[in-house]
Amino acid sequence: MDLWYTEKQTENFGITAKIKETLHTEKSEFQDIAMLDTLQWGKMLVLDGMVMTTDKDEFVYHEMIAHVALNTHPNPKKVLVVGGGDGGAIREIVKHPSVEKAVLAEIDGRVIEVSKQYLPQIASELTGNPRVDVQVIDGIKHVQENKNEYDVILVDSTEPVGPAVGLFARDFYQAIFEALKEDGIMVAQTESPWFNQELIRRVYKDIAAIFPVTRLYTVSIPTYPSGLWSFTMGSKKYDPLHVDEAKLFDPPNTKYYSPSIHKSIFRLPKFVEELLK
Amino acid sequence: MDLWYTEKQTENFGITAKIKETLHTEKSEFQDIAMLDTLQWGKMLVLDGMVMTTDKDEFVYHEMIAHVALNTHPNPKKVLVVGGGDGGAIREIVKHPSVEKAVLAEIDGRVIEVSKQYLPQIASELTGNPRVDVQVIDGIKHVQENKNEYDVILVDSTEPVGPAVGLFARDFYQAIFEALKEDGIMVAQTESPWFNQELIRRVYKDIAAIFPVTRLYTVSIPTYPSGLWSFTMGSKKYDPLHVDEAKLFDPPNTKYYSPSIHKSIFRLPKFVEELLK
Repeated sequence: MDLWYTEKQTENFGITAKIKETLHTEKSEFQDIAMLDTLQWGKMLVLDGMVMTTDKDEFVYHEMIAHVALNTHPNPKKVLVVGGGDGGAIREIVKHPSVEKAVLAEIDGRVIEVSKQYLPQIASELTGNPRVDVQVIDGIKHVQENKNEYDVILVDSTEPVGPAVGLFARDFYQAIFEALKEDGIMVAQTESPWFNQELIRRVYKDIAAIFPVTRLYTVSIPTYPSGLWSFTMGSKKYDPLHVDEAKLFDPPNTKYYSPSIHKSIFRLPKFVEELLK
Repeated sequence: MDLWYTEKQTENFGITAKIKETLHTEKSEFQDIAMLDTLQWGKMLVLDGMVMTTDKDEFVYHEMIAHVALNTHPNPKKVLVVGGGDGGAIREIVKHPSVEKAVLAEIDGRVIEVSKQYLPQIASELTGNPRVDVQVIDGIKHVQENKNEYDVILVDSTEPVGPAVGLFARDFYQAIFEALKEDGIMVAQTESPWFNQELIRRVYKDIAAIFPVTRLYTVSIPTYPSGLWSFTMGSKKYDPLHVDEAKLFDPPNTKYYSPSIHKSIFRLPKFVEELLK
């Protein structure tokens, strides 16, 4: 029997992946959680019918949400991840020797548990690392309650529907600004430049109204809608384009990030550049 | 009735697109040709079951196969496209004022005719432009029969199966080297860095054994396998990384290429960079 998982990424377009088996499904307090074993991508975590991460291409998203900000800040010590229950961003953050504490604020404890069980190489740092503080809490509330606390905050959210809507709101970016230290940096995942142009435009404008430095970069993620994904950075002081590439920390065991692409990812295809004007 | 076109890009993964209608299908002397009208991407040309181009994202492939080489060569006058019967590469080439003659060598005249009928904005320069010479011929033979003739040769091929196998062979790159003038440049489309790693590795090695300068660059094409696509450049003299971006020609009406990305596209994700070692 041939089983295929098909995800409609838009009303009229999608991807389809042959599966060996469905390893797990549940309805948590917040969302539908599924773990599929696919032939092309290995294990695949699906939340509310949208691919979150897979064994084979997870390195792109996790490296690229983390290292660009951490290598723009000269000395990041305390880092917060909002969302990101699979642990991939945390795994990359703790590669930086300067980091003393990486806090995970994930609202859905079940995502953490399912990831630990089925994606151990992604969730590897969620247990037993004294520098990692895993909290099952509302990340928005946590950000609101902390002032002048973090060097870097990463918004590793699901799509802007359901529990994640508040993570794309201007009020939230303002709260992040206040939760950051005076030279702090934020990065948020901001969807596909092909399919989410209005969202990218709005988020960029919102962040640019709050942070002195605002930059957008893109990466290739084959299991995400359109294969092209964007991240938006807001920075109080440091500009990712002003770093000295030759002096950047080269995080170990990466497959996508290297200091040599740190600046080039900000050179955008013309249609993406024009979204930001 | 909901109709979906599903393309298996690999044995275990594919894309699926909702279609309004099938506008045309035929079996030409060389391949199956289909023109679909899709809701997401507009009209879609499919050859032997593989998406070749669509209304909405064609600009990426056509701009990026053409402008990088044409802006690396300081004065390209005579340009050859092998394949490329839809006319998109030709449309971009003739934007360069230095170009006196752009020759299209397409083996399948039916691709040209179907494109003229259904993709008029892509095929726009295939009729009535005295600088364009459309020939329904075997591009391999044409390359073999011409020596020291072209400034730039673009290999705008289908996938390396069926009629296009010879377009990925080392002998062919050697023939291109000889068909180019002493400072000529070639660019070939070389598939997905996610799905075609052995091919990329081999072609890069073959071209590097013939040309003094060999470079690989990548672009985002959502309807192509994995969404990330590679092009390999072989150059007898000029290095695309040594141009002065500030002095590059800015081709009109582009949506992807701009002089500001001319160099950055050569900065590769680490796993792609490592294919070339």
